[in-house]
Amino acid sequence: MPRLLLFVEYDGTDFAGFQSQENGRTVQDELNKAVSKLYKEDIKVTGCSRTDAGVHAKCHLSHLDVPFVIPEDKIPLAVNQFLPGDVKVREAIYVRDGFSARFDITGKKYIYRIYNARTPSPLNDRYSYFCPYELDVDAMKEASEHFEGEHDFRAFCAAGGSQKTYTRLIHKVSVTRTNENHIEIEVSGQAFLYNMVRIIAGTLLAVGDGSILPSEIPEIIIKGERKLAGKTLPAKGLTLEEVYFDRALAAADSSPKT
Amino acid sequence: MPRLLLFVEYDGTDFAGFQSQENGRTVQDELNKAVSKLYKEDIKVTGCSRTDAGVHAKCHLSHLDVPFVIPEDKIPLAVNQFLPGDVKVREAIYVRDGFSARFDITGKKYIYRIYNARTPSPLNDRYSYFCPYELDVDAMKEASEHFEGEHDFRAFCAAGGSQKTYTRLIHKVSVTRTNENHIEIEVSGQAFLYNMVRIIAGTLLAVGDGSILPSEIPEIIIKGERKLAGKTLPAKGLTLEEVYFDRALAAADSSPKT
Repeated sequence: MPRLLLFVEYDGTDFAGFQSQENGRTVQDELNKAVSKLYKEDIKVTGCSRTDAGVHAKCHLSHLDVPFVIPEDKIPLAVNQFLPGDVKVREAIYVRDGFSARFDITGKKYIYRIYNARTPSPLNDRYSYFCPYELDVDAMKEASEHFEGEHDFRAFCAAGGSQKTYTRLIHKVSVTRTNENHIEIEVSGQAFLYNMVRIIAGTLLAVGDGSILPSEIPEIIIKGERKLAGKTLPAKGLTLEEVYFDRALAAADSSPKT
Repeated sequence: MPRLLLFVEYDGTDFAGFQSQENGRTVQDELNKAVSKLYKEDIKVTGCSRTDAGVHAKCHLSHLDVPFVIPEDKIPLAVNQFLPGDVKVREAIYVRDGFSARFDITGKKYIYRIYNARTPSPLNDRYSYFCPYELDVDAMKEASEHFEGEHDFRAFCAAGGSQKTYTRLIHKVSVTRTNENHIEIEVSGQAFLYNMVRIIAGTLLAVGDGSILPSEIPEIIIKGERKLAGKTLPAKGLTLEEVYFDRALAAADSSPKT
């Protein structure tokens, strides 16, 4: 059976996260329903990552095996007719048998958005966290560098994860004031612990308001105590922006698209 | 009584427009309720314009008379505690007695946003209109110039308005591809007919897809037939961005803020 990789965008506001669960509307369930209707058989997709309730994705990957070939460029339109407005397939490609959206991705990029102004903005409320006080972005930039590299991130992990190790490789953490009222915290890495990006964002916010010094970050990482890091910022500010994988390695051996 | 001018931002998605009406949730009702709670008496605000159901506002003006003075910079926080998340006061200033948000404004700027890509984007769905086919932005730019100036715009007015004249002065109409997938149509003018900006946007979209030529716009204006213009685009793509007035003329005579 041909294997498809879907690039999916969703507004997480009304979802209880990506992964199927007993209660709550999930992105995975919507995708399963849509592809099952299109291919007229029961199909389940496998996602590149769970995302928490309320987290958005500009690009989330899922793979699935399909019973017949529809040309790649026709797939988004074909699947989207069965999807609601808050989740849509943006692109689809055939990949080699065995390629996994879960195990063959090499990294992910998240952006945490802060709306920083004296008064809240209804037009920015859906995709950012509102912070009404002034933030020292230079201090946040300085602090962000300490997160880069391979570290034991247990201080930046919510209870309830099932990981074997707390060590993760973080490629990049940056803080940018993109315009007067918007601050973006970018976090890219190979893999992440439960709530890790939202706790890093909360810690950088604490640096911005002066309650944590940039020079204290290495010590917080080494001590490994959750209570020393900042708070977990709300899900709505977080967007999964990109998922990395090797397109050449993922390419289908034969070419089912023709 | 001191007169206040409120600068209000709202997400129009869940509103039946600005103006109070018998059925439906309106921005004006939310503002009336909030200021009445704050000042502990029945107060009604007067807005600079009705906006249609679903239209957003980055900056909408309302004036009201208040029974006592709260310092200007404390007013947004004070009113906002009684407002829901989709409407907030961004700024407040005291104005002279008799200054009217409705009659003393000199112009308004609207932006109509088009999301132009092969596939729809859930993260852009709330504030833009999705157009899946390629648009000739140069042709749209050329067409936009014909709207500028004083014209009889009856071809660009929905039935149901109560205006005495269809003549309006339009200061600027421009079309900009702000990035790969986003097109912004800016329309600034002294005043507008019912649905006028959404019909101008629909006409420019028809120019973009080749069904109307830029050179045909003057003729459509002169003939004055609604059916010759483009369709009325959906409200969700439209945002009232700025409202113009003379700050010096509006200034309070005495200074109730001190």
